[in-house]
Amino acid sequence: MTHPTYFESFDIRQVLSDHPLGTPFTDRFGGISRDAMFAMQDAQFRKVMARGWEIPFYRRLWGAQGIEPGDIAGLADIAKLPVYDKSDLMASLAEHGPLGDFTGMDSFGGGGAARPPVVLHTTSGTTGRPQPLMFGPKGREVINLLVGRIYRWLGVGADDVIHSVYGHGMINGGHFIREAALHFTNALFLPAGTGIETRSVQQVRLMADFGVTTLVGFGDYVRKLAQVAEAEGVLDRIPMRLLIGHLGSDERALLEQAWGGAKAYDWYGVGDTGPIAAEGPSRDGLHVFEDAHYLELLDIDSGAPVGMGATGDMVVTCLFKDDIAPCIRFNTHDVTHELGMGGDVALRRIAGFRGRSDNMVKLRGINVFPHAVAGLIDGRADLTGEYVCRLRRDGAGREEMQVTLESRGGSDLAELAEALRRGLGVEVAVVLCEPGGTAAHTQVETRQKPIRLIDERG
Amino acid sequence: MTHPTYFESFDIRQVLSDHPLGTPFTDRFGGISRDAMFAMQDAQFRKVMARGWEIPFYRRLWGAQGIEPGDIAGLADIAKLPVYDKSDLMASLAEHGPLGDFTGMDSFGGGGAARPPVVLHTTSGTTGRPQPLMFGPKGREVINLLVGRIYRWLGVGADDVIHSVYGHGMINGGHFIREAALHFTNALFLPAGTGIETRSVQQVRLMADFGVTTLVGFGDYVRKLAQVAEAEGVLDRIPMRLLIGHLGSDERALLEQAWGGAKAYDWYGVGDTGPIAAEGPSRDGLHVFEDAHYLELLDIDSGAPVGMGATGDMVVTCLFKDDIAPCIRFNTHDVTHELGMGGDVALRRIAGFRGRSDNMVKLRGINVFPHAVAGLIDGRADLTGEYVCRLRRDGAGREEMQVTLESRGGSDLAELAEALRRGLGVEVAVVLCEPGGTAAHTQVETRQKPIRLIDERG
Repeated sequence: MTHPTYFESFDIRQVLSDHPLGTPFTDRFGGISRDAMFAMQDAQFRKVMARGWEIPFYRRLWGAQGIEPGDIAGLADIAKLPVYDKSDLMASLAEHGPLGDFTGMDSFGGGGAARPPVVLHTTSGTTGRPQPLMFGPKGREVINLLVGRIYRWLGVGADDVIHSVYGHGMINGGHFIREAALHFTNALFLPAGTGIETRSVQQVRLMADFGVTTLVGFGDYVRKLAQVAEAEGVLDRIPMRLLIGHLGSDERALLEQAWGGAKAYDWYGVGDTGPIAAEGPSRDGLHVFEDAHYLELLDIDSGAPVGMGATGDMVVTCLFKDDIAPCIRFNTHDVTHELGMGGDVALRRIAGFRGRSDNMVKLRGINVFPHAVAGLIDGRADLTGEYVCRLRRDGAGREEMQVTLESRGGSDLAELAEALRRGLGVEVAVVLCEPGGTAAHTQVETRQKPIRLIDERG
Repeated sequence: MTHPTYFESFDIRQVLSDHPLGTPFTDRFGGISRDAMFAMQDAQFRKVMARGWEIPFYRRLWGAQGIEPGDIAGLADIAKLPVYDKSDLMASLAEHGPLGDFTGMDSFGGGGAARPPVVLHTTSGTTGRPQPLMFGPKGREVINLLVGRIYRWLGVGADDVIHSVYGHGMINGGHFIREAALHFTNALFLPAGTGIETRSVQQVRLMADFGVTTLVGFGDYVRKLAQVAEAEGVLDRIPMRLLIGHLGSDERALLEQAWGGAKAYDWYGVGDTGPIAAEGPSRDGLHVFEDAHYLELLDIDSGAPVGMGATGDMVVTCLFKDDIAPCIRFNTHDVTHELGMGGDVALRRIAGFRGRSDNMVKLRGINVFPHAVAGLIDGRADLTGEYVCRLRRDGAGREEMQVTLESRGGSDLAELAEALRRGLGVEVAVVLCEPGGTAAHTQVETRQKPIRLIDERG
């Protein structure tokens, strides 16, 4: 019984040629024409479609629409395919056992014995029950490469020490980022993990001892570590220059202020897809990694493509994932808008994560994104930046949203209420609490993505 | 600024040729002659020595003994070299910064920019302050391969689901084992981690949901999970057949009883070296992986080689580690004895971990290994197998060891005291407590290696 090792399961030279990183990345995509890009994407898409037809999940999904293989000649026909989302994957898992029927794992010879290695993790369960994530060696290493591409694009090199606060265990995040940095950069990498894996006080001591220059993870905990470093008296010993993570709602100023002097960079992706778009050095929008992903922005209600600048669901097709668990028109339910060409390279640009369409709440008939609060209170000296939103019904049955903000003192309640009303587009009730007062609700110390919305409307 | 990716930094085909796994492993070493083995080891050793002379730590260590490069012509001269241990590495770290001067990381061109990736972790700190562990891509993948070799030798294949309870974060263990299973087997792998990363109740549910067949980690927590699975009513849904880990003191019967029907296998290695020796299918001693390690057993006091069957410190030279942090005569301070040839393959055999010479305690002038208690109480229905030893001085200043055992009821104190006296070679005081009563001292739920000895002699 023999099977290839992980390393023999894909061709690293081909991967690096299809998806360059370092100088070859900016060389290749600095001025690529739209036609050349489309041709490249189209060729990859045809391979992914061929793989899709081998997989029961897609045969069922597409068959239900009466689609046959000949109907999709190439990328120009992609809109004929239905989108799917996490609920479809969860239904597949419920019906077809712990791995579902969307991976294509059964399609190898030798009764499975010849199957190459498969990476299995779960999501962190931010938006519900943890979902298994599976990758073939090639699919895995391309997403790793894309993270490495971001880090190197932003200047990470052999003199850097990267400190990661993405969590490990079953969760994909920490393992994925560790592999990315280790396989595709030559910086030193410290996989500290969440505050549960390595206590925050230990984390900041590690950062001082090893001279950490680059902190990667979700903004909330990245910010908290600056406070801990200051309290422990080691902030000055940490030569931090880069904060690379996910500035979901614009918390850039807050992060940079906390880590005085460091620059914060945003990238976007989900567990199934890896990095979809990232800021370059000039931080002028997030460039879509079009060599790896075909991104569509679709109207939340109608599913039709939205125009430039209009908010839509990000629907992604992974052009490289032709081994395990292909991803063909996956609706992330994360919303953004397109910015048009420009910036660092000739790759499409988006604004980045602007909320979740399934976290969007209707408040008295108006669409509200609770995560937008972060951007509205960003950079104010009187607030810590922490917050939690609570949806309830008052005695008369009227829906209201109460936003609790942490104040360091000197906050003007009426002014804040007006700023939130203008920013969110609806009147909300504002409550102030002491610094740290929202932590019990948001679980900012233990969760990768803190809870920002508590819906008590029942 | 360009540098090789992890994958371009070593030649997987050469690695698999030098260190076979699967059927090629048993084919190659089933009947290899001692001469052929020595010639293979000698050739590798010369490369490792050449690399050693490039590294300040070794130049200092060897130079202090007046040794010059020409003095060590090959493996036959190895005994001329001094041994070193963790205290030497810690001294290097104290003097030369967070990475010490034992890695050879500075010996690459381009001011470091051309340096290949380096893996950085720490030990779990079982025997003191956590120690940084560093590996080059080749050195790392050989130790990963050796774990994969063990798993496949014991029958792990594409139908298996491996559940790992080795911890993650900065600690090497969990990452290392995950890489090993993922790169060199094609089993599914669940990196659950410690009970802190994934709560024990969640762990056993995962095991039932995914149909775990193989549980890997340290014996104490492996055993505890069986109890949790039973309490949660899912034990019958877990098709466990292999328990592969570290049966430091013989807890095999206890583990197999807890996971009714599964077979337990032992392997030995330390963070710096990876797997040094492992049981094969017949479990007739641990075979040393001589293609990768040159193992010496040296007298604890004199440092001279011990005879067959006599207890000595395991001193290891990693024959494959010629990139980052070579390991040349590293004294693990773990003790064992040699069993002579025989068993599954024509590789030297040892008895496995039999205690630590620096954990060995002198009790009224007699050498006592507290960890030997586990083997002496193994498999008894009246005891849980958990224990803790406490060294104190009585009112008259006389040293005594008190051993606390967890009893399920029906234990005969006098009989237990006599069994321990005979097994340890010295009289000890025995105390019985309820099941779970030692957990606060041993920290069995949160530590990879529980605390078994508390020395209160001051």
